[in-house]
Amino acid sequence: MSAIDETHDPARTSWIESANGHPDFPIQNLPLGIFSPPGHHARPGVAIGDRILELSGVGALLPEAVGHLLTGTTLNPLLALPSADRLAMRRRLSQLLSDPANRDALTPLLHRAAECVVHLPAAIGDYTDFYVGIHHAMNVGKQFRPDNPLLPNYKYVPIGYHGRASSVRPTGVPVVRPNGQRKGPDEDAPSFGPSRRLDYELELGIWVGKGNELGRPIPIREAPQHIAGYCLLNDWSARDIQAWEYQPLGPFLAKNFHSTISPWVVTAEALAPFRLPQPPRPEGDPQPLAYLLDTHDQQHGAFALELEVRIASEQMRREDTAPFVLSRGPATNMYWTMAQIVTHHASNGCNLQPGDLIGTGTISAAEAGGFGSLLEISQGGKAPVTLPTGETRTFLADGDEVILRATARADGYVPIGFGACSAVILPAP
Amino acid sequence: MSAIDETHDPARTSWIESANGHPDFPIQNLPLGIFSPPGHHARPGVAIGDRILELSGVGALLPEAVGHLLTGTTLNPLLALPSADRLAMRRRLSQLLSDPANRDALTPLLHRAAECVVHLPAAIGDYTDFYVGIHHAMNVGKQFRPDNPLLPNYKYVPIGYHGRASSVRPTGVPVVRPNGQRKGPDEDAPSFGPSRRLDYELELGIWVGKGNELGRPIPIREAPQHIAGYCLLNDWSARDIQAWEYQPLGPFLAKNFHSTISPWVVTAEALAPFRLPQPPRPEGDPQPLAYLLDTHDQQHGAFALELEVRIASEQMRREDTAPFVLSRGPATNMYWTMAQIVTHHASNGCNLQPGDLIGTGTISAAEAGGFGSLLEISQGGKAPVTLPTGETRTFLADGDEVILRATARADGYVPIGFGACSAVILPAP
Repeated sequence: MSAIDETHDPARTSWIESANGHPDFPIQNLPLGIFSPPGHHARPGVAIGDRILELSGVGALLPEAVGHLLTGTTLNPLLALPSADRLAMRRRLSQLLSDPANRDALTPLLHRAAECVVHLPAAIGDYTDFYVGIHHAMNVGKQFRPDNPLLPNYKYVPIGYHGRASSVRPTGVPVVRPNGQRKGPDEDAPSFGPSRRLDYELELGIWVGKGNELGRPIPIREAPQHIAGYCLLNDWSARDIQAWEYQPLGPFLAKNFHSTISPWVVTAEALAPFRLPQPPRPEGDPQPLAYLLDTHDQQHGAFALELEVRIASEQMRREDTAPFVLSRGPATNMYWTMAQIVTHHASNGCNLQPGDLIGTGTISAAEAGGFGSLLEISQGGKAPVTLPTGETRTFLADGDEVILRATARADGYVPIGFGACSAVILPAP
Repeated sequence: MSAIDETHDPARTSWIESANGHPDFPIQNLPLGIFSPPGHHARPGVAIGDRILELSGVGALLPEAVGHLLTGTTLNPLLALPSADRLAMRRRLSQLLSDPANRDALTPLLHRAAECVVHLPAAIGDYTDFYVGIHHAMNVGKQFRPDNPLLPNYKYVPIGYHGRASSVRPTGVPVVRPNGQRKGPDEDAPSFGPSRRLDYELELGIWVGKGNELGRPIPIREAPQHIAGYCLLNDWSARDIQAWEYQPLGPFLAKNFHSTISPWVVTAEALAPFRLPQPPRPEGDPQPLAYLLDTHDQQHGAFALELEVRIASEQMRREDTAPFVLSRGPATNMYWTMAQIVTHHASNGCNLQPGDLIGTGTISAAEAGGFGSLLEISQGGKAPVTLPTGETRTFLADGDEVILRATARADGYVPIGFGACSAVILPAP
C-alpha cells in the first residue's frame, strides 16, 4: 500500500488554474495516459485540469528510473516499475506542477486536452473480466435461474473469464451494434441479425503493473505490488446473443465486439487516501480460503469511489438535454477485493503481464437506483426507463451515448475522478 | 484456397538429404517458425528435414513483398501478408532447396534443428478456443449432463471462448501442475491444492493471417484469406478445478496455466492438397445459418490429417520404453470448418489480428481409441489406462510427457507433418 504524502495535501494547488477544483484531474490525481497532440504522434502524458503535460519533455527532470521510459507510445514499461519508482515520479510531478517557478519551462509541454486524441494507455496483452459485483450476480442470476440465483461456487471463487484484448477502445470511439445469433424462448431456431438487447456494464478496470512468471503464483500480501492503477470499463453486452451462446463455455460474441475504457491510468498511489476496509461478509457466508485472506487487504482492500452511469439519446443531444442519470452507487459492492482478484488469477501459475487489463465485473448496488446495467434496471426488458424527452429504453438504441464516471471522495482530501468513459452506439452493418 | 502447384510435386526432392522421406518436414512442407541458433538471438526460419534454414539470410533471394519482413523476432508481419505473397515465397524456397546448385550458398544458413531453441512463431495478440469436436462435446456432456449431453445451441453456434495468450508456450517447455480450488461432490467446501485431475486436450490451432477491422465482419467466402496456417495445440486442463469454477462464465484457471503448441506454422498453402469435403451433417441436423454456409467451404473445408496422442511416463523414459499411443483419429471429426470458425468469430465485428491463435477444441473420434483427452479415455476417472510398464493412469502424473502429432496424407502426395507438440508435467509449487 502506498503511503499518503504531500502529493495528497488538500492545500496544494497548481499554477495551471483549471486544475484547481477540477472534478477529475486536480493536482492530487496526476493520472497517466497516452495522447496525440493535434497532428502529432502518440506519446505519454499526465492529465492536469483541462491540460495534458507531455512527459517526454520532462523526462530529464524526473527520477532516473522513469525518465528514460517516457518516449514510447505505450505506458507498459512505466506500469511495470515498482510502486516506489512511480511514487517518486508522482512526487516530482506534483512539485513541478505546484511551484509557479516552473510555469515558463513547462508551458510549451502543455496541450489543451480537448484538442488532443487519447489512446489506449497500454498495449493490452490479455484482458480478463471478473464477476465480483455480488448484487449484479444476484440480479442477473434471478433472471436466468429464479430458484438458484447465486451458484454454489460464488462465495468461494472470484469468478472470472477471459475477454478480448483486441477490441478494447478508449473513450469516444463509437460502438457498432453487433450482429449475431438470437433465439427467443418461443422461437424454434435462431436467426442472425442485429442485437435487440444491447446493454452496457459499469465496471472498474485494474491495470496490471509488475508481472509474475509462468508457474509462479502471486501471494495475496504481494498482490498490491502488481497493481499499477485503475480505470473505468464499459463491458458492452448483447444480452440476446449472450443468452443463446453462453452455455457451456461462457460469454463470447456477446461481449467481444467492443469494450470501452477511460484512458487515464489513475494510479494506485493517487488512490491511497481513498482506501476503505472491505465490508464484512454477510452472516453465514464462508470465509475466503487462506490463499485469498490477508489482514491488511481486509482492512484496506475497498475504495471510497462513487460510480455513476448517464445516458444521452440522439434526441437529447440534439435538444441539448443534459445526460440522464441511470444509476449511482458505491464501489464497495464488490464481494472480492482487487488483491483477491489478482491473487486468484495467478493462483494456478497463470502469468500476468504489465499492461494486462482486468475488469471487476458489473458493480451494482443492492437497491434500484444503483444497478450497473439496463438488464437489471429494466428487469430483463419488462420495466422501461423513461428519459427526459419522453423516449423509453429497455435496452440501448442506436445513437445512444452511455457515459460512466467515477469519483473518489474522503474526508480531508480533494476528490479525484477517472475522467470520461463514454461511447455512442452506431447501427449494425 | 491455394492452388496445387509444383511445390507439392511428389517427385521433388531436396539436396538436404534428411528432408527426403522426413515424416514431418520434407520439401513439400516448408513450415515457418522462429528459432535461435546456439548462442544467438531469435530469427525466422523454415524447417527442412532435420535442419532449419535461416530466412533472413535468403531475404534478398525471395520475392520483394516478403524479403524485407524476415529480420524480426516474430512472424506476425509475414502472417499478415496475402496468401499470394506467402505462396511466392514458398515457390522460391522450394526451388532454392531442391536445386543442388544452391547448396554452397545456403549451407552457412542451415542449422541443426536439434541444437536450436524454438520459440513461439508469433506474438499472440488474442488466443481463442473453440469446441467443434462434436464427439468430444458429446462425451464430456454425457459426464456432466447425462440426459442432455449436447446443449440446444451446439448445432447452430460454433461454440468458443477466450483463452489466455500469455501462457501459450512452444513444445518442450515443462508444464507446472496448477494449484486451485477443488471440490468433490461429497465435500462440503472446496480446498486449495494441486489439481488431482490434470488432463491434456488434442486440438488443432489456426494462425490468423490478415486481420479485419473492428466492426467489419469477415464473410465466409473470404475467411480462407484470413488463415495463414495451422499448428497442434495441447489445451492442458485441470478437470477438478474446471468442474468447480466453470459456471456460469466458462473455463478459466482450469485452462490458463499453460497451453502448448507445435512451433512450426504449417501454411495453408502447404496443406492445399490435403483438403477434403466437410463430412455431411447427420440426418435431421439443421443446416448452418446463411452467414456460415459456403459451397466451396463445404466442398473443401476439412483436412486429411491423422492426429495422434502418445504418453511417456518418467519410468517409461528411464527404461527407454517407446511412448504409448493413447489415441489416433482423423481431423474430420469437426462439426464446423476452419472458415466457419473464423467467420463466426468475426461475425459480430470482433477484430482478428495477424498472429492471433484460434484452437479448434478437442478433436475426438466417435469410437474409443480416438478420444482426444483422458477425461474421455478414462470415462471421467473410472477406467484406468495401463501403460507398458504396468503403471496405470486415469489422469496425468508428475513426470508424464504427452506428445501430440499430426500427419497430412493424400493419394499421390508426399505426407507432411506438424512436428512435435510435447511437454513434461512438473509437480505443483
